[in-house]
Amino acid sequence: MAKLRPLGDNVIVKPLNAEKTTASGIVLPDTVSKEKPMRGKIIAIGEGKEDKTLNAKIGDTVIFTQYAPTEVKIEGEEFFILGFDSVLAVEE
Amino acid sequence: MAKLRPLGDNVIVKPLNAEKTTASGIVLPDTVSKEKPMRGKIIAIGEGKEDKTLNAKIGDTVIFTQYAPTEVKIEGEEFFILGFDSVLAVEE
Amino acid sequence: MAKLRPLGDNVIVKPLNAEKTTASGIVLPDTVSKEKPMRGKIIAIGEGKEDKTLNAKIGDTVIFTQYAPTEVKIEGEEFFILGFDSVLAVEE
Amino acid sequence: MAKLRPLGDNVIVKPLNAEKTTASGIVLPDTVSKEKPMRGKIIAIGEGKEDKTLNAKIGDTVIFTQYAPTEVKIEGEEFFILGFDSVLAVEE
Amino acid sequence: MAKLRPLGDNVIVKPLNAEKTTASGIVLPDTVSKEKPMRGKIIAIGEGKEDKTLNAKIGDTVIFTQYAPTEVKIEGEEFFILGFDSVLAVEE
Amino acid sequence: MAKLRPLGDNVIVKPLNAEKTTASGIVLPDTVSKEKPMRGKIIAIGEGKEDKTLNAKIGDTVIFTQYAPTEVKIEGEEFFILGFDSVLAVEE
Amino acid sequence: MAKLRPLGDNVIVKPLNAEKTTASGIVLPDTVSKEKPMRGKIIAIGEGKEDKTLNAKIGDTVIFTQYAPTEVKIEGEEFFILGFDSVLAVEE
Repeated sequence: MAKLRPLGDNVIVKPLNAEKTTASGIVLPDTVSKEKPMRGKIIAIGEGKEDKTLNAKIGDTVIFTQYAPTEVKIEGEEFFILGFDSVLAVEE
Repeated sequence: MAKLRPLGDNVIVKPLNAEKTTASGIVLPDTVSKEKPMRGKIIAIGEGKEDKTLNAKIGDTVIFTQYAPTEVKIEGEEFFILGFDSVLAVEE
Repeated sequence: MAKLRPLGDNVIVKPLNAEKTTASGIVLPDTVSKEKPMRGKIIAIGEGKEDKTLNAKIGDTVIFTQYAPTEVKIEGEEFFILGFDSVLAVEE
Repeated sequence: MAKLRPLGDNVIVKPLNAEKTTASGIVLPDTVSKEKPMRGKIIAIGEGKEDKTLNAKIGDTVIFTQYAPTEVKIEGEEFFILGFDSVLAVEE
Repeated sequence: MAKLRPLGDNVIVKPLNAEKTTASGIVLPDTVSKEKPMRGKIIAIGEGKEDKTLNAKIGDTVIFTQYAPTEVKIEGEEFFILGFDSVLAVEE
Repeated sequence: MAKLRPLGDNVIVKPLNAEKTTASGIVLPDTVSKEKPMRGKIIAIGEGKEDKTLNAKIGDTVIFTQYAPTEVKIEGEEFFILGFDSVLAVEE
Repeated sequence: MAKLRPLGDNVIVKPLNAEKTTASGIVLPDTVSKEKPMRGKIIAIGEGKEDKTLNAKIGDTVIFTQYAPTEVKIEGEEFFILGFDSVLAVEE
């Protein structure tokens, strides 16, 4: 499979679907906000930059918000490339 | 119960309802401002970042303002994910 | 009485009424500016943050400006939560 | 007389009237700019903050610009509270 | 062939065509976002500046976004000049 | 003659007239830009601030741009007060 | 000939005409972007400021972009005064 290595303070996440939401007991309600929270699984983490680090690891399920995430498709699967600052919390 | 760990300078608060407001003697009046103050209980605190720290602890009742807080629901309960800067004061 | 502890570079002031204005000889005229100056008494001062300090103490009467101050009511009394930068001068 | 102590990088000036302008030989012409220059006498200088200092002293006549200066009246006299950056030059 | 040396935190990329997209298994879908991701091959990398570095090398195929990339044509071929921050990930 | 001492990173210049332009062989053409370049002679230089210095001296003829320069008149002569960053080049 | 010495992070370039473009094999296509790239020859380089340097030398042909470059005419020839950041690449 083609692989993407994120640069700097970018992270690649696979967005998770609605069924997963039910399983974990965590629901991301629709809001009037333009930046609706989304859930995803971390696929790869950039090397960071300046004082930016991400306190999470590959495989973590995270909550992130981003108005217009950068989308890429690898062999038919959709991924998002996000900045570290867009990732708000880790499900544990 | 599913658990959320906030990252960086994010904090998770459980918004408190109107009855709690009366009990403490503190009322958050409606204002014309877009950023109406709200009350909540701190559930979890991120590890901080750069020079940002939050001088409060889990369980504290805090006053915060945020135009469009990021909402998540865990097993039917509503929580907000906020930046440290949105938390203004602690009720003691 | 319920007590509020301000965080970071926030300060809590009790806005002073018009009669107090006359007593001190200091008047805050109406202006066309959106940020009309107001007078208040400092009730509590946050621990500061980064390089921000407030060269005033609890009990000082201060002049501040803020377009939309964050209002809270404690047992019927109105208070404002303001950033240090909104406090311009101390009456002595 | 009630006294005001400016905080941080704020300075208090007494705006000078048109006759003074003629006496010094310095005139501040009307301009189309929103930030018309004004003349004033320094009454008090804040303690400064971070790397900000004001290379002037109490009693100096200064030229300043500010779109909407914060006005206060002390015993019928009008004063302005300005940031250090609004003060451009000293008349000598 | 005329050669371009990028300065500071600029990088020169040759945009790759649609067929290449299919070969690698990575597809960049059309989005409603103004900053649609694009794929390109790095031709030259500036010396960096301040704390900015690019963790990629000449010949790497990268994903970048830029609303209005600076275009140059060298002997009929189209190239883009981009800032390091516009380059999000490397295909490996 | 009344004298003005500029503060911080401000400089005082006497704008030069159109005839001077011809003598030096340097012409500042009308442009569609809001920030048309102007020529002036440096009268006084502020003490600088933080990392800001001006690599020019009193008497130098300089090219500067400023959308709305602060104008003052001293004994009938017009002067501009400008920030160091508005001064682009020195005629030699 | 009148000479201009650029200050700080400014550089003076002589814009090159369309024929030169053909000779080098490098073409700057018309774009919908407001900041169309242009080609020019470096005439003089400011002393730099803070952490800003320009990794090019007098006589280099450079690609730059600037929405509204500052134009001056010296003895009938047109020159631009640009910030270092506007210069993207050097032709070699």
